[in-house]
Amino acid sequence: MDDLKQFRQWGSKTPGHPENFETDGIEVTTGPLGMGISNAVGLAAAEAHLAAAYNKPDFTLIDHYTYTIAGDGCMQEGISHEACAYAGHLGLGKLIAFYDDNGITIDGHTDLSFTEDVGKRFEAYGWQVLVVDKGDEDVDAIRKAIAEAKACTDKPTLIKVKTTIGFGSPNKADSHDAHGAPLGADEAEATRKQLSWNYGEFEVPEHVYAAFKKQADAGAAKQAEWDKLFAAYKEKEPELAAQFERAVLNRKLPENWDECLPKLTEKDNGKATRLHSQDCLNAIAPVLPEFMGGSADLAPSNMTLMKCTGDFLKDSYSERNFRFGIREFGMGAVCNALSLDKTGIIPYCATFTIFTDYMRSAIRIAALSQAGTIFVTTHDSIAVGEDGPTHQPIETIPSLRLIPDLTVMRPADGNETAGAYKYAVERSKNESRPTMMAFSRQALPNLPNSSIENTLKGAYAVVECSDPEVIIVGTGSEVHVCVDAAKSMDQKVRVVSMPSVEVFRAQSDSYKESLLPKGVPTLSVEAACTSGWDEFSTAQVGINVFGASAPGGTCLEKFGFTAENVKECAEKCLKGETGVLSDGTQGKH
Amino acid sequence: MDDLKQFRQWGSKTPGHPENFETDGIEVTTGPLGMGISNAVGLAAAEAHLAAAYNKPDFTLIDHYTYTIAGDGCMQEGISHEACAYAGHLGLGKLIAFYDDNGITIDGHTDLSFTEDVGKRFEAYGWQVLVVDKGDEDVDAIRKAIAEAKACTDKPTLIKVKTTIGFGSPNKADSHDAHGAPLGADEAEATRKQLSWNYGEFEVPEHVYAAFKKQADAGAAKQAEWDKLFAAYKEKEPELAAQFERAVLNRKLPENWDECLPKLTEKDNGKATRLHSQDCLNAIAPVLPEFMGGSADLAPSNMTLMKCTGDFLKDSYSERNFRFGIREFGMGAVCNALSLDKTGIIPYCATFTIFTDYMRSAIRIAALSQAGTIFVTTHDSIAVGEDGPTHQPIETIPSLRLIPDLTVMRPADGNETAGAYKYAVERSKNESRPTMMAFSRQALPNLPNSSIENTLKGAYAVVECSDPEVIIVGTGSEVHVCVDAAKSMDQKVRVVSMPSVEVFRAQSDSYKESLLPKGVPTLSVEAACTSGWDEFSTAQVGINVFGASAPGGTCLEKFGFTAENVKECAEKCLKGETGVLSDGTQGKH
Repeated sequence: MDDLKQFRQWGSKTPGHPENFETDGIEVTTGPLGMGISNAVGLAAAEAHLAAAYNKPDFTLIDHYTYTIAGDGCMQEGISHEACAYAGHLGLGKLIAFYDDNGITIDGHTDLSFTEDVGKRFEAYGWQVLVVDKGDEDVDAIRKAIAEAKACTDKPTLIKVKTTIGFGSPNKADSHDAHGAPLGADEAEATRKQLSWNYGEFEVPEHVYAAFKKQADAGAAKQAEWDKLFAAYKEKEPELAAQFERAVLNRKLPENWDECLPKLTEKDNGKATRLHSQDCLNAIAPVLPEFMGGSADLAPSNMTLMKCTGDFLKDSYSERNFRFGIREFGMGAVCNALSLDKTGIIPYCATFTIFTDYMRSAIRIAALSQAGTIFVTTHDSIAVGEDGPTHQPIETIPSLRLIPDLTVMRPADGNETAGAYKYAVERSKNESRPTMMAFSRQALPNLPNSSIENTLKGAYAVVECSDPEVIIVGTGSEVHVCVDAAKSMDQKVRVVSMPSVEVFRAQSDSYKESLLPKGVPTLSVEAACTSGWDEFSTAQVGINVFGASAPGGTCLEKFGFTAENVKECAEKCLKGETGVLSDGTQGKH
Repeated sequence: MDDLKQFRQWGSKTPGHPENFETDGIEVTTGPLGMGISNAVGLAAAEAHLAAAYNKPDFTLIDHYTYTIAGDGCMQEGISHEACAYAGHLGLGKLIAFYDDNGITIDGHTDLSFTEDVGKRFEAYGWQVLVVDKGDEDVDAIRKAIAEAKACTDKPTLIKVKTTIGFGSPNKADSHDAHGAPLGADEAEATRKQLSWNYGEFEVPEHVYAAFKKQADAGAAKQAEWDKLFAAYKEKEPELAAQFERAVLNRKLPENWDECLPKLTEKDNGKATRLHSQDCLNAIAPVLPEFMGGSADLAPSNMTLMKCTGDFLKDSYSERNFRFGIREFGMGAVCNALSLDKTGIIPYCATFTIFTDYMRSAIRIAALSQAGTIFVTTHDSIAVGEDGPTHQPIETIPSLRLIPDLTVMRPADGNETAGAYKYAVERSKNESRPTMMAFSRQALPNLPNSSIENTLKGAYAVVECSDPEVIIVGTGSEVHVCVDAAKSMDQKVRVVSMPSVEVFRAQSDSYKESLLPKGVPTLSVEAACTSGWDEFSTAQVGINVFGASAPGGTCLEKFGFTAENVKECAEKCLKGETGVLSDGTQGKH
């Protein structure tokens, strides 16, 4: 009750929008419109998968419905189209969505901007659509609709409930005034009167407490029943039960799970880090049955298919390759929910690096709401090439580094890719936190001194030098260019690979100072905008202009990502020049 | 022909995706899926508005159709839902969209992920939906469908055209292999043969040249006819014609247009910059009939309604207040097209600062494709307050500063708001480039020394001091906090307001050095993440953690945006401390 009285106040459990990290019993953090109904699709998908994977005849371990309430705003947002079309495609029969159809948004009546036939649209998605006409009072009609929803097992159900915003308020009902602002003492009093609610402010009658208590008791009884069921299941299905206990109930990784990850040496043939990523995904997939995900229709480009499992589709919920379709934002919200479902699923989702812009809000809310989503992205720089500047990230990776509590990894080779996966999987499972990874389209050599252990330091020397005159720091596909530049220089040069700014920041001061000592001229090289690199370097090579359509190698060359240019800039840096030494403007035609 | 041979090569006019800034005759830059059909809605809205505003009986100056081709990917993307639902709501009868229904996406057959009934969905939006079954060859059916589309004047039309991807290719038709990769010489030869196309590589038969030439001649004749019509219109409607010539044909602002902008002094009552923004919008609206836009259902919060005009709706296309609905991404794409229509429209669109994340790709493509969209955002920091961290920008403004060619303005008071509008309007009309503005929810005092002229320098001293020991640089709502901090200090302090990083960067070196001399300890203060501020300051006050739900004033205080904390940090800065001195972590509970 004290918390209720602290609604929207500092430190309360009752913030302005539901926040799972502040309040027990809140599954997901919503508020940004359309996020909730899209999360619900993920929660329902998690149920469908776990039921298919673990239930056995006479042993229904997993069996629950996912309910969500969406408003006019949710229905207008594009994310609801993506997630709900996907839910219809999947035929998620245990997803039940209430559409609170009250006809009012912040601008006023929905007539102003929103006149589509929502029910027909959802039918087009393959949903069952039901209507409750008098949603303010006709609770029996709602009960009946829920029963009908449950009876339809192969389609999600939308229950369109006609309601009145601020129902009961004599002067503010059916108007935007009842949306976000308090009614005020007088109007609250008048509302109580109109509703014949004979209790005071913050007074909850005893019979309500009793009703909730009854539910809690019933829940405890159901839990005891389930525990008994699971004990029997353990007898009958010892292997599956052990997996269920580890992965779902205790949410622990198997010991030494990471031994599956590839280890490479400088002699191994180089290839694109997106291919190393494919190797890692396929090494992890058989070891971690809770690892599941997919791409927004770029599987053959993102290289994200797991070969040991099939497609998660309407008739194959036990499989683990998601076919999200071209629905980045919906995909992100679905994956966040797969993690926040708290059944141990480690979800990944994939698209081109540039299209994280389409799902940026889902990435942000993963970080905010502590979802362990792994965002796999490929084609991470102008080396994308022919697709041109609409598809070439410039500011994308640096802009993602700005999101609090998100870790960005940009591996330079095979070992760094394996290190990124070790980090991302453990961060997902053990800490329920997101990681974003950026992989190259183009082939890259395996580097000297790279390893999983070094990757987990965030940065380390790939070319060591005890008393460097200048240090060159690169990330991802630029590290080997830095190595080549250093080789061609007469000075004492250390080359540092920094797969993760965030992970490096978290290292001890002594390690950071030993790797990047203050006072030593340091040049950073990244095929991205230079902003933010002042933190680690005295001078920068980057690209602060949009790219161009041409073969990837040509783009890299024209915009200055050559050993020659890096060498030249490193020499300037050594002589004391600071700031942005190469920003790609030389490449604009 | 040379350009065709240079497809996707460096410096060619034939990049991998259509780019309006590289190639004449390309209206908009697409490639990111769903962008084209959403742009088309904007192009059709521009036509509808100009026709309603300028056509007179017997003088149909504006009368054209907007055609667009969309694929399966576009249909899956949320942006297509937003823009097409909006187009249906507006009843844009001259919008004709072809849906290239070929059943193939990058992952394979659309059965994998995309099984909705697209036609039914568009009917739900209020579109006319037509079907062409044999789109590969039945050109007459397409012609017939276009005629039917034109006959339906109160609804946009979707023509669902069943096609075969790679039609004619004996081995790659109807498969993803025909999507992005070249057919190869042999398969191209086989395709020519199958299609009975008896010409060589890059050989265009004479009759095709002749057909195009005929079209060019017909176009020239139509132009001459139109010129005659306009000459008569000038006689009959001299006032409207003059406006049309200035605003639409010549695309020039009226002389001294900016005299309409408010000018304030320190003595004027302070208020939220979103209210100053409202004053500016309403000062501009009567002066510039080509100024039009609106909010994504936040008009009463963004304060973006123009009082001198009504709502742009189905029966009132001559009005200029857009009611975009809760459709940020669609809104951005529509506004970009309003600008790229090249009829002189100055479009603005509005949402909360945080929800630029929903439309980030539209903002990026505005910058890339040289669209003069003005992005108005309000509620620009943790001072949003009660709505909580899902609604409180932290990294949002810094992340937008990273987008090449986008200018971000964060005004501190009334004069800076007016300066931002002067900048944004002129940049839109004269240069066709976008500006993003961030306004406060909360009231702010008017500052000493602020003016439109100073704002246009990007940064200037609000508290002058000829020989400063320390400089404090603030932006937006933090500038007055810096002024208060400086007042409480005994040292010689200059306070600089920096409404725009990008505009300041473009000033002369001497001005920049005079304002922020190297060697003087400089503290930056912004209620946003600190990354990037190294460029201008030696030490930083910011917030690198997510905010919290509480009254805005409490948030500012808890996270360190008080005169007291700024003073303390300025003193540390003066003593030589560098880096992030206050990052908001003290406020985490």
